[in-house]
Amino acid sequence: MLKLYSFGPGANSLKPLLTLYEKGIPFEQHLLNPAKFEHHSDWFKAINPRGQVPALADNGRVVTESTVICEYLEDAHPTEVKLRPDDHHDRAQMRVWTKWVDEYFCWCVSTIGWHRYIGNMVKSLSDAEFEEKVKAIPIPEQQLKWRRAREGFPQDLLDEEMRKIAVSVRRLDDHLADHEWLAGGMFSLADICNFAIANGMENGFSDLVNESDSPHLLRWIRQINERPACREMFAQVPHELAPAKKKEG
Amino acid sequence: MLKLYSFGPGANSLKPLLTLYEKGIPFEQHLLNPAKFEHHSDWFKAINPRGQVPALADNGRVVTESTVICEYLEDAHPTEVKLRPDDHHDRAQMRVWTKWVDEYFCWCVSTIGWHRYIGNMVKSLSDAEFEEKVKAIPIPEQQLKWRRAREGFPQDLLDEEMRKIAVSVRRLDDHLADHEWLAGGMFSLADICNFAIANGMENGFSDLVNESDSPHLLRWIRQINERPACREMFAQVPHELAPAKKKEG
Repeated sequence: MLKLYSFGPGANSLKPLLTLYEKGIPFEQHLLNPAKFEHHSDWFKAINPRGQVPALADNGRVVTESTVICEYLEDAHPTEVKLRPDDHHDRAQMRVWTKWVDEYFCWCVSTIGWHRYIGNMVKSLSDAEFEEKVKAIPIPEQQLKWRRAREGFPQDLLDEEMRKIAVSVRRLDDHLADHEWLAGGMFSLADICNFAIANGMENGFSDLVNESDSPHLLRWIRQINERPACREMFAQVPHELAPAKKKEG
Repeated sequence: MLKLYSFGPGANSLKPLLTLYEKGIPFEQHLLNPAKFEHHSDWFKAINPRGQVPALADNGRVVTESTVICEYLEDAHPTEVKLRPDDHHDRAQMRVWTKWVDEYFCWCVSTIGWHRYIGNMVKSLSDAEFEEKVKAIPIPEQQLKWRRAREGFPQDLLDEEMRKIAVSVRRLDDHLADHEWLAGGMFSLADICNFAIANGMENGFSDLVNESDSPHLLRWIRQINERPACREMFAQVPHELAPAKKKEG
């Protein structure tokens, strides 16, 4: 049986989670609590030495990186509901969108999320407690991000990230104005991976994602939320962990 | 007939180029000169509106993004020489490596390359000439990178990028110490995409890539250079454009 280690239905964790629900593949749900730094605990680093969720264990072999896990599920379960276009050109377009999430869209949203949520979480720790948490983080860049969240991100960085978020919203809304889905005329991993970051932005970024400025993006967010697999996922997976999107990016 | 638009055998352009040579797929070679800013010219932006190489045209449909093009060539030409492992887990490992190049390794090497080569190139332009070149660049982030290259990158950014390059070299050398190839026990897109950035580092970054500090990485670089497809590529494709690696990243 597949085992998925995740923070629940938000941000990068949502990608393989929704993929599993859409494909109807049974799996064991292992939820980690980011507020307890469970992803940096020794038992989890034995599964993913980089201390990052999501991670998928399949017969003892572990696959990491959310987008890679989604492609893996397509490779390993090609006969269930298809989430990749068959046409090679359409499939390439799908990958341009999933790659764009990983290289651009997710980072700017993540920094703002860290600024708003992680900052307060780590500021409540004592210096000694904080240093102990940081010591457990295996990736130097992640250690730095925790330190920056505690010190407060510089305003010019936050401004730059907000600029990129506006660019991202524009790009998605423009494309969705004349496409039902992002790639290949079908609901695909391109939609799942972008939805993972965009869902909830109508609340957290309402000055950008709203009925008058980005109606097509809003339409698409609602349409995905109404899919049976998506409703089932949100109904079954604890909501306490949902804001992980804003916590871990 | 496939048409590949590239800067020649260096950096991101090398990825689809070597993939085509390895697979033995005939294609039309279209080389652009980065020093003449040909990738920002109107004729090329009609092919790729983002003004970036490489781009592959297949029967009038265009595929962009170097890693996506490589996967496309595997999807569209599965019976030629295989550059993706069949095993799903091995294929996922391959994608972890190609994703790492795109999100981490290529960026730090690229900034140093821009600092060393593009800086001098754009400093020789007048203000008016420079502004005209920048106006033709469709992506705001790329415009900013050109401006920074002209002004000079801040030293703390350059130091940080050098730190990341050292981390990258260590990661590759450690893995190659007990693996002939990066993923799945075979020469794959993981090797091609990392080689695209790593090849030549024994010259440009000899304090990191050398016989005593990273012998396994060096062994792997040489081994790829000796492959018939790689020799053929370097022999056939003009060398003037090879340093594009250092120019465009």
